[in-house]
Amino acid sequence: MAIIKPPVGPLLSGERFSVIYAITGTEIQAYEKAEDITVEQTVEFPEELVPPGVIKDDILGRIESFREFSQEKFLAEISFAEELAGGEITQLLNVVFGNISIKPGIRVERIELPISMLKHLKGPRFGIHGLRKRLQVEKRPLLCTALKPQGLPAEDLAQFAYSFALGGIDIIKDDHGIADQNYSRFRKRVDLCVAAVERANRLTGSNSVYCPNITASFGEIMKRAKYAKDNGAGAMLISPGLAGLDTMRAIADNDEIALPILSHPAFQGSFVTSPESGISHYCLFGQIARLCGADASIFPNFGGRFSFSESECRDIADGCVCGMENIKEIFPAPGGGMSLERVSQMVEFYGGDSMFLIGGGLFRGSDDLAENCHKFRKLVG
Amino acid sequence: MAIIKPPVGPLLSGERFSVIYAITGTEIQAYEKAEDITVEQTVEFPEELVPPGVIKDDILGRIESFREFSQEKFLAEISFAEELAGGEITQLLNVVFGNISIKPGIRVERIELPISMLKHLKGPRFGIHGLRKRLQVEKRPLLCTALKPQGLPAEDLAQFAYSFALGGIDIIKDDHGIADQNYSRFRKRVDLCVAAVERANRLTGSNSVYCPNITASFGEIMKRAKYAKDNGAGAMLISPGLAGLDTMRAIADNDEIALPILSHPAFQGSFVTSPESGISHYCLFGQIARLCGADASIFPNFGGRFSFSESECRDIADGCVCGMENIKEIFPAPGGGMSLERVSQMVEFYGGDSMFLIGGGLFRGSDDLAENCHKFRKLVG
Repeated sequence: MAIIKPPVGPLLSGERFSVIYAITGTEIQAYEKAEDITVEQTVEFPEELVPPGVIKDDILGRIESFREFSQEKFLAEISFAEELAGGEITQLLNVVFGNISIKPGIRVERIELPISMLKHLKGPRFGIHGLRKRLQVEKRPLLCTALKPQGLPAEDLAQFAYSFALGGIDIIKDDHGIADQNYSRFRKRVDLCVAAVERANRLTGSNSVYCPNITASFGEIMKRAKYAKDNGAGAMLISPGLAGLDTMRAIADNDEIALPILSHPAFQGSFVTSPESGISHYCLFGQIARLCGADASIFPNFGGRFSFSESECRDIADGCVCGMENIKEIFPAPGGGMSLERVSQMVEFYGGDSMFLIGGGLFRGSDDLAENCHKFRKLVG
Repeated sequence: MAIIKPPVGPLLSGERFSVIYAITGTEIQAYEKAEDITVEQTVEFPEELVPPGVIKDDILGRIESFREFSQEKFLAEISFAEELAGGEITQLLNVVFGNISIKPGIRVERIELPISMLKHLKGPRFGIHGLRKRLQVEKRPLLCTALKPQGLPAEDLAQFAYSFALGGIDIIKDDHGIADQNYSRFRKRVDLCVAAVERANRLTGSNSVYCPNITASFGEIMKRAKYAKDNGAGAMLISPGLAGLDTMRAIADNDEIALPILSHPAFQGSFVTSPESGISHYCLFGQIARLCGADASIFPNFGGRFSFSESECRDIADGCVCGMENIKEIFPAPGGGMSLERVSQMVEFYGGDSMFLIGGGLFRGSDDLAENCHKFRKLVG
């Protein structure tokens, strides 16, 4: 057996962050899994060989509490030295759920970061208050829609954008599948849609904004963000599941861009498919979206064409505003197969600090798009 | 009902890519889900409002085949116009599994890209043949190990690297949780470990390489890759689940870096947790890893401390070498709680074109690390 000499000297500040995991199994199994997490997410080393001293005492994860939550489900709070995250979101997420994402029956419920870590993170640049101020919408829920269908040229999408803005939609975003396809190039689309929305704003006196989808390849995404900013877009749509969570964070932190970010859940569904594994709705679409700079978190509303339950949607809304020190509260943005008929229910369920996203549904009803938008606007009060 | 004028003119080349989805449900349910995919992944628009012509005919996904696979499981091949992917991996993955990742009972089994798309992708720079050539290992499986435990200073990790190289390990990588923590800074670690491995190589005449973990924040990862390259590292470890799949692709494609890439599965486990949802092992750790530039795909071997089955591991190995035109074959790299006792079985199961990863297990047995490595080396023939 190779003996490892323990390192000398104080490496750690003593500050620790915590993750609350829901673990499935009997009490004995669940506790064993909790102990396993303390090793797997840190030293990943045969426990009997872990050197004594700071590595065994402080680098290893520490079970702070363990309690039964429901039958065969236990909640374990495990803390980790803040230095393990190395000052990067990528490595923080690695400690939270890197290797154990591959082990069934472990679900990340909640993250709790100490102020010593949070103060190094900017989180959302605008949040609820900042976005309201930019859009000059004081109290009511924000209205959002999506330009589609895929395949139309930029001119047609811009025509829709004009009608939507005329109808009083606050944020007119690209559908998340509209990128830089040859039938609707990104730059031309930005130019035309920004101009169309400005034209409508001059008529209405409102402050609608165009929000292009900037999700793109590693080398391209920052360029699209800058183009959007420099050419009058009022927000940006990013799918962090495709582009990378820290990519969204980097764009949010970039002072030259400084535009509100709507986060889209594309390619992230597998994290929340299983009630026993993955990451909770609260944490992924609430806490993590905020840590990575989203000002609004788009998710599929209950009762639409997706399968999130009412309580999962409630959890997301809670995660968007839970106390996280300097990390601003953000808008939950339910959408996905929504119709005007559902709006009153959504207002009641989510309250005023929400963003409601109706896409294709606005094309139903009257063939006057702006009129359909006015109905939407009236329904939110 | 707002009528949309169909766009005019030929937008599409006619080339299409296909995704084979496994869909759970009765035959009627499964077929409905397949039809839903054709809409959800493309126009995402009320079907009755989709304009006739090119959008309805070609932009919508197309069910090419549909057949029963097993009880309540059906295989649907759905094709999409290549233009939908807009020439970017991010948008390709969005079409393959963006929104439907949020719908249960749909699993991506396999992707089939036409040569017109593949020729724009470089895939792995080295692949099996290129990596063998660099390491000057003609036929036998490659040996890989990981520097750990987390918490040790760079000097100690470099000492291990020396012993591992002396013992004949081909690729000596950082543990995937070792990033740029204050107790083992990235640059210092690269300097010391490269020097240690070179020192050992001079004694042995071998070509062991040090493979630092470059997984890092958006703004930092390319800098770490360049530092690794410029300072003598022989390969790089990336966790694309943390850094972004296209981030790995961008690094693989960068001619100034041009180092072999080992892909690590951290934070990707949720995609393969459910047999009914997510992405197949074959596709995620085989096909997608290759499309995104990995030269070796690390995954947890069956019978270790993770839960992949023998057949799931077989699927990964198959996905690493399946026919993909110009996209090179890569090494499957099973690891995760492996021991010397398992090596003969691994050789038999995976064959010669494999990379075997034993980390903590090499510290067991003799306290002479190099001697343990020699045993490992002998076991692979």
